[in-house]
Amino acid sequence: MVKVAIINIGDELLIGQVVNTNAAEMAKMLNAAGFDVVLTQTIGDDGETIRKFVVESLAYNDVVLVTGGLGPTKDDITKKVLAEIFDSELVENVEVREHIKKMFAQRGYAFTPTNQEQALVPKKCRVIFNAVGTAPGMCFEKEGKLLFSLPGVPFEMRTMMKEVIRIMEDHFETEVIEHRTLMFAGIGESFLSDMLEDFEATLPAYMKLAYLPQPGMLRLRLTAKGTSKKLILSEIENRKEALRHLAQDYFIGYEMNSLAEAVGEKLVEVQKTMATAESCTGGNIAHQITLIPGSSRYFKGTVVSYANEVKQQVLGVNVCDLEKYGAVSEQVAKQMAQGVRQLLQVDYAVATTGIAGPDGGTEEKPVGTVWIAFADVNGCHAEKYCYASTRESFIDRVSNYALLMLLKKISAAR
Amino acid sequence: MVKVAIINIGDELLIGQVVNTNAAEMAKMLNAAGFDVVLTQTIGDDGETIRKFVVESLAYNDVVLVTGGLGPTKDDITKKVLAEIFDSELVENVEVREHIKKMFAQRGYAFTPTNQEQALVPKKCRVIFNAVGTAPGMCFEKEGKLLFSLPGVPFEMRTMMKEVIRIMEDHFETEVIEHRTLMFAGIGESFLSDMLEDFEATLPAYMKLAYLPQPGMLRLRLTAKGTSKKLILSEIENRKEALRHLAQDYFIGYEMNSLAEAVGEKLVEVQKTMATAESCTGGNIAHQITLIPGSSRYFKGTVVSYANEVKQQVLGVNVCDLEKYGAVSEQVAKQMAQGVRQLLQVDYAVATTGIAGPDGGTEEKPVGTVWIAFADVNGCHAEKYCYASTRESFIDRVSNYALLMLLKKISAAR
Repeated sequence: MVKVAIINIGDELLIGQVVNTNAAEMAKMLNAAGFDVVLTQTIGDDGETIRKFVVESLAYNDVVLVTGGLGPTKDDITKKVLAEIFDSELVENVEVREHIKKMFAQRGYAFTPTNQEQALVPKKCRVIFNAVGTAPGMCFEKEGKLLFSLPGVPFEMRTMMKEVIRIMEDHFETEVIEHRTLMFAGIGESFLSDMLEDFEATLPAYMKLAYLPQPGMLRLRLTAKGTSKKLILSEIENRKEALRHLAQDYFIGYEMNSLAEAVGEKLVEVQKTMATAESCTGGNIAHQITLIPGSSRYFKGTVVSYANEVKQQVLGVNVCDLEKYGAVSEQVAKQMAQGVRQLLQVDYAVATTGIAGPDGGTEEKPVGTVWIAFADVNGCHAEKYCYASTRESFIDRVSNYALLMLLKKISAAR
Repeated sequence: MVKVAIINIGDELLIGQVVNTNAAEMAKMLNAAGFDVVLTQTIGDDGETIRKFVVESLAYNDVVLVTGGLGPTKDDITKKVLAEIFDSELVENVEVREHIKKMFAQRGYAFTPTNQEQALVPKKCRVIFNAVGTAPGMCFEKEGKLLFSLPGVPFEMRTMMKEVIRIMEDHFETEVIEHRTLMFAGIGESFLSDMLEDFEATLPAYMKLAYLPQPGMLRLRLTAKGTSKKLILSEIENRKEALRHLAQDYFIGYEMNSLAEAVGEKLVEVQKTMATAESCTGGNIAHQITLIPGSSRYFKGTVVSYANEVKQQVLGVNVCDLEKYGAVSEQVAKQMAQGVRQLLQVDYAVATTGIAGPDGGTEEKPVGTVWIAFADVNGCHAEKYCYASTRESFIDRVSNYALLMLLKKISAAR
């Protein structure tokens, strides 16, 4: 087992202004290649702290991956610290300098002394080429262990990780590691856990089951590690099938990251189209659907009807119903779904109308109240939920409820 | 200075299946209260590892905050490990048990033996009440230091952090810490850095400047720490103003987290309304805008016109132009903006049409090509960009370009 530690450097991560997405993304790539990430750490832009954690992590692990602190600005100091740790002077790298110059020329920018400093690298390191940015990556080797330093900009890090993994694969012999993920929806974590008690108790020592709850859905991940690829593969496939059968009623799909992906697969399979009419979700369902590559095959569009006039004039919601029942009502939700279905000429439509908060609630309809409607050629169906939370998590959860309703209705319609 | 370390437990974080948003959110709350987060660590659901990192972090820091591993499922073991570290047996807490029972009754669920285990807590700890979930939080004290354990579910953690900070404030005397954030757009990080060289060189030792780049924009954060609140406040205000003047042309606003927030403030100020027509951004601009509380005051709605028929039939894009110039063209972008402005009867509209990829590019219009258009009562303006990236980051960046265009045009129109 090759043990990997990740160190993400940046004061902005420690005061919480920026969420650290790099750790997760790097871990995912390393894991897929059979390396074990055992620790991720976030520390500040401080020379002494960087030195302490890099040296300690190298002592306990086989590979240390550092991100951040390579930019051209004054608060970026990682490169100097690493040059000290590995006792190596900074020298200009001609290839890196020419690459930076070229990138600046393409963008029509001048090449300033601040940028010139980015072409300096420690003499002892192997340069990891940064095709999409100006800060070069670095790889150091010491007593059979590897240390990598990459920029903190996610897009640059992502591109360079491929080269990092190639170097690691050349350097180490890796164990076989397999993951299988199953998505479930419509059941709470503790209930699923009770259903799977016997299954979990009889798992062999080299397999692990993890619960990954998200708003409105839940993924289970099976992991198997070992030296025999054949055994690992056959065992994990068997257990995966067993798991599915134990909770078949709530099963959505394998290796899926979102309900939007599940909806997309189903629509491609049945060759139907869809649209959304969104009030409280404000376009987030459409956004989730269009994050999936190829969604133009089944998704035709959306009307975000935030204002009541838009509900009336574009979606054709009855003005008397709007006044009588209010915008957050079964009647309006259904008319929105039917309206967008007709307007965009699709097979299936979902609509949402609710109170995301923090203001706008009443005693009868408190913040968190939402109606979700589905329309197809056979008619219309609506459900009411109440989920008081932050604005953002309300929008996320309602979007997932709507996608789940869509998925179930499409599956039932076949 | 009270040093705080955060430990987030969860295998799902180490294999990258879930992004760790808790660390950032906790750090933000702690920072605002004057506590220094010096380290965040993510480790696996493994008893020995949890013990090692908790004990080490307690040795070097004043407070350790642990999240995760408190759920009802088999992979959650934090509570047992903490009971061992603090040499305290697990006993049933009647209040917690009754609360869990009540929560389950409200949801119409049965109270199972698995849930009953959640009512067990170490005898020596102070229970942090979890009003929105079933797993209780815990606070341990040892030699003047504090250790907190909270659930990993973001919504539950968030609610309980208020109580955690109250306990910390009672326990420690805190330093004054102030942050000011300035948002800029339309300038690259290294260019802004060059403009601010003298400013940075003359900052006093107790102040720090950090660069926080995001797709299509950049925030600068000034931090000042000290014992005199009066001095800290007056100094940080002076420097903030100086910073703004140095890069006035690119300045967007203070204490803002997104361009959508800046657009919203401006629209409230000038009392105008807006709408969007989105093809390649698929509703994400609308989603960003509606994440802001109170956006219904100025945002009327959106047409996501993913299919060409929707561009024609709903937005009134000319069918000949669609055929002649293609969907990704200046002509179509402008007609989309004008079309949605008319349809939803708003003052301002933006439209996007582009190729998000990974497929759909041609030699003439490669993946990453996008036209963004703005329309108001005086007419229409469009710009072309090319930004090849992942689908997700393309959508993010184009959304920010569109919001920046909107912001500039509204500001100029006054």
